Amino acid sequence: MSKKFSKEPLRGFKDFYPVNLRKINWIIETIRDIAELYCYEEYEGPLLEPIEIYAAKSSEELVNEQSFFVEKKPGERLILRPEITPTLARMVAKRSQELKKPIRWFSIPTCYRYERPQKGRRREFKQVNFDILGEDSLYAELEIFKISIEILTSFGATAKQFQVYYNSRRFIDAISKYLLNIPENKMPLIYKVLDKSDKMDESEFEKYVIDSFQNEIVVQGILKLKEAKNLEDLLKKFEKIPKEFYNSKGYNEIIQLGKLIKEAGISDYCSFTPSIVRGLDYYTGVVYEVFDTGKENIRAIFGGGRYDDLLSLFSDELVSGIGFGMGVLMLSLFLKTYKLIPEIVSEKDYGDTIYIASINEEVANYAIQIADLIREEEIPCIIDYRFKSLKSQLSKASELGIFITLILGPQEMEQNQVVIKNMISNEQKTVEYEDIIDEIYKIFDELEDSYDF
Amino acid sequence: MSKKFSKEPLRGFKDFYPVNLRKINWIIETIRDIAELYCYEEYEGPLLEPIEIYAAKSSEELVNEQSFFVEKKPGERLILRPEITPTLARMVAKRSQELKKPIRWFSIPTCYRYERPQKGRRREFKQVNFDILGEDSLYAELEIFKISIEILTSFGATAKQFQVYYNSRRFIDAISKYLLNIPENKMPLIYKVLDKSDKMDESEFEKYVIDSFQNEIVVQGILKLKEAKNLEDLLKKFEKIPKEFYNSKGYNEIIQLGKLIKEAGISDYCSFTPSIVRGLDYYTGVVYEVFDTGKENIRAIFGGGRYDDLLSLFSDELVSGIGFGMGVLMLSLFLKTYKLIPEIVSEKDYGDTIYIASINEEVANYAIQIADLIREEEIPCIIDYRFKSLKSQLSKASELGIFITLILGPQEMEQNQVVIKNMISNEQKTVEYEDIIDEIYKIFDELEDSYDF
Repeated sequence: MSKKFSKEPLRGFKDFYPVNLRKINWIIETIRDIAELYCYEEYEGPLLEPIEIYAAKSSEELVNEQSFFVEKKPGERLILRPEITPTLARMVAKRSQELKKPIRWFSIPTCYRYERPQKGRRREFKQVNFDILGEDSLYAELEIFKISIEILTSFGATAKQFQVYYNSRRFIDAISKYLLNIPENKMPLIYKVLDKSDKMDESEFEKYVIDSFQNEIVVQGILKLKEAKNLEDLLKKFEKIPKEFYNSKGYNEIIQLGKLIKEAGISDYCSFTPSIVRGLDYYTGVVYEVFDTGKENIRAIFGGGRYDDLLSLFSDELVSGIGFGMGVLMLSLFLKTYKLIPEIVSEKDYGDTIYIASINEEVANYAIQIADLIREEEIPCIIDYRFKSLKSQLSKASELGIFITLILGPQEMEQNQVVIKNMISNEQKTVEYEDIIDEIYKIFDELEDSYDF
Repeated sequence: MSKKFSKEPLRGFKDFYPVNLRKINWIIETIRDIAELYCYEEYEGPLLEPIEIYAAKSSEELVNEQSFFVEKKPGERLILRPEITPTLARMVAKRSQELKKPIRWFSIPTCYRYERPQKGRRREFKQVNFDILGEDSLYAELEIFKISIEILTSFGATAKQFQVYYNSRRFIDAISKYLLNIPENKMPLIYKVLDKSDKMDESEFEKYVIDSFQNEIVVQGILKLKEAKNLEDLLKKFEKIPKEFYNSKGYNEIIQLGKLIKEAGISDYCSFTPSIVRGLDYYTGVVYEVFDTGKENIRAIFGGGRYDDLLSLFSDELVSGIGFGMGVLMLSLFLKTYKLIPEIVSEKDYGDTIYIASINEEVANYAIQIADLIREEEIPCIIDYRFKSLKSQLSKASELGIFITLILGPQEMEQNQVVIKNMISNEQKTVEYEDIIDEIYKIFDELEDSYDF
């Protein structure tokens, strides 16, 4: 007995058996249908990219701590993509002239992050990404919000089960500038601190803010952002608000987006939440995260935002975009929490499949010929090549959930016939070769009438 | 102006714009339909695996020269999978007890090989894999051959355009043992030499064989294998054939498989070709390669074979399998050669999509409401948020190939109406909100009658 290798995948990775993959594919196909309805076109990029394109705009942590590196040539550092947005920016930059704006694209990339595996996080994960580029108005935000909501509601989720918490980095900028007097070079630190706020308890967070800013006004301001329930509530917390704040792009963006949300009838699903910022460096405008409102899933299900300068890595053209990246695993955990994945989707459905049982090997050839005939009609078909007893073949067919079995023996072959068996009623009869397809449809029709499936 | 990063993907990698991805997805969906008809279930595994599982059974060249390595922990060598079969073996080994045999599985993995990029080869490539495990009879080979052929014929390819060249490693073993008296430990070298034969010209190959074996009988034998047109022709080339050869499993396997191929009516598509061996170490029985019969694509389109011992890396259970791996790129080159990919599959079809043109921003909200109504009917829909002149919006819709545009202005909004425009006949009329869906279907029906699309 030789030494055996592990049967387990690497830590943080997963084997998708058909029973698992059917569920994933069902989720993805549901989302693909929504992409179709909103006319988003699918793209895909390389899984390996040079490290620079993430280092510049994504996040230091992502690149330095959470990456899988590949080094083929000395000095060339490649990375298994931790996300696809920089690739999207590269692809759009390359063909921007010929691509009609607005560009509505989606993708279903597999991505990699070297993190501690935990609930909802693996080191290899599938994401769904939707993006609009070249549409500067807030209608793009509205469309992305609507798609985000429609994905969840299409599975049956309700506004009681999830909420879109939105904000704008420009709003944070306006607060920082006009209400907290933070110098511009400290802005990124504000984003970073707010992004961490979910991941700490209250006292831990307070200490972290104090350590970061050493300035009582700023510390109080950040805690106000964190605690405010809505815009009114937030502004009440500040004593004097200068006119410049009300004239700022950030403030007006939030007001206008709130109005659009209301008019579009999705305000049940959306809440302005001034502490939301997102972790990626490239966001510049509206940002949002979608949360389970219950206690089961405390991390965001997914999120996204607007990035104004991402193409600048590759070209001088200014193209603004907004989009989201949704981990399929987090989504499926959310759906599972609310029992929104029907059991049936993980089972292979043999209801439309014909089973061909052969009495012995002599008729194998006839079985193959019959199978060809059936598959030509686009009806799936399995041939049993074991040639065990008829009883065992029929019980195997039953076990799979087959509705129709064809039984062939030397006599049937000689007379160009088959025995067709309805596995539900247990009725069987002999039919001529040329009537096989008609008889199959007849039984399917009968079953449909009686079972309503 | 800051320094810009390259807009190109890494060498040997490709960006899939929607216009490219639609073609790939069309090819894959066609193959998925065949998987469905033959009841193969889809699985997927991790893209990173420990190097050992390839080093043991795949091929030295694959692991030492053609791999992308990832090293996260010192001493742990991970590899971007060059193929998926070892992963399949691991997954089956792990759940063998509960999986019903025969296991019919397929997968569409992305794989990686660090080779010189050339026609039909990229460093990142999508493969289609079909495998049956736990079915020892040659009916498994027959089914795999039939699927291989059906994939190509389903795109319209004919027996004049491609051939399945098959052999058995056990047949090579019998030749080697009984006709060439090669010691058993030299067998792998025979496989290796034969596998290289396609990649060299005649004199180069002859020199390579002589250098490898230094034995005139063996050299002559290998050249006979290489030159033989069929089984009869091959055996005629040897003077004395011992009875043991005719009793060997290898010889009888070829005879029996030839018979099955003939009876199943696929002999037009298949030729016994004694020089076919395949490059991967784990094949033990029948092997085959599918070639373009023309001059355009000289490398195999794809191939596969039977592996008896692959699970032994992971468990003591003996499960034999047979399958193939088909590069989607090579397949698409073959299909392109014979013009079997309709132009239309790479274009986005807007024929079923409704375009919503708004006279001005005042009605944006009404436009969104109408879009919701339409999408609820599962009809795709685009809203133009630019609010440019009606003329420019209509010409944009025409450009996309839209058949129906809805035009909304303040008057329509006020009266809960829309103007519906048939973009082909240029007829338009005002309809009530509650009649919009009916009117859309009416126009689609008319167009269908007149255009037969």
